[in-house]
Amino acid sequence: MIRIMKITVISMGEVKNKPSIELEKEYLKRLTPYFKTEIAEISTRKLAGLSEKERKSKEAEAFLSKIKKDDYVILLDENGATHTTAKFASLVKKHMMAGTKNIVLAIGGVFGWDESIKSKANLILSLSPMTFTYEFARLILVEQVYRVATIINGIPYHKE
Amino acid sequence: MIRIMKITVISMGEVKNKPSIELEKEYLKRLTPYFKTEIAEISTRKLAGLSEKERKSKEAEAFLSKIKKDDYVILLDENGATHTTAKFASLVKKHMMAGTKNIVLAIGGVFGWDESIKSKANLILSLSPMTFTYEFARLILVEQVYRVATIINGIPYHKE
Repeated sequence: MIRIMKITVISMGEVKNKPSIELEKEYLKRLTPYFKTEIAEISTRKLAGLSEKERKSKEAEAFLSKIKKDDYVILLDENGATHTTAKFASLVKKHMMAGTKNIVLAIGGVFGWDESIKSKANLILSLSPMTFTYEFARLILVEQVYRVATIINGIPYHKE
Repeated sequence: MIRIMKITVISMGEVKNKPSIELEKEYLKRLTPYFKTEIAEISTRKLAGLSEKERKSKEAEAFLSKIKKDDYVILLDENGATHTTAKFASLVKKHMMAGTKNIVLAIGGVFGWDESIKSKANLILSLSPMTFTYEFARLILVEQVYRVATIINGIPYHKE
């Protein structure tokens, strides 16, 4: 039996937009045969009054408590490297083959990532030269993970 | 009184996914103070049995019937140029200042654009090195147009 790899999407901040949550749910449902995909939201509600530096440091702390030593950590960051979907799929497939247990895809908060976190990441990835909110970035990311699953498994992308 | 510029998003194919339509509607609603934004769907249902060449030619014909001579036409294409959101905003602002009546943002069908259309476009733009379905590309595009509106008007991006 082939073990299903886990993909954890960590987002700094909660998604509250209902249609966005609905659409994300749909992709997560479609993903069930391929990956054990989980969304882990880190609440940032209590960080609203902090300075940028304090906030990034608090977020870094919260983020580090969520990841394990052998996770493959991909940070989403607008200054990261861009990948085609095919290249992203190859990377994910390589980790499936190598027995990686969990790929973490992490979306930063309003000020981006603390430098201490950037140096710990295995890859810093940008979805596009365009800028998105963390909420919308999460939706794009989950859609791309689904597309990656269809590429790896050689199935046509479901068109509804 | 300042005339509100029109932005027409043309998509080759209908979006049927409900949460995607809901989210798009939300961005369109938020856009009302800034642009006259319109979605024009070209139905591709009757083109399903055609060859790639025939289909692209039929799509090109339908697309040309939708645009006017003085429209500024931006084709979305995965091989197009990528722009940052700031650069995209500058371009849109330049057209507002110059009195452009309508910016057309057009998303191609499953096989992409016919060459005859590419040569008629004012700009060929790629949203990301990643690949999206036309449905999801349309959602990203509408979200970006909203972000462009917030940049041009100097208002903070609405976080819900």
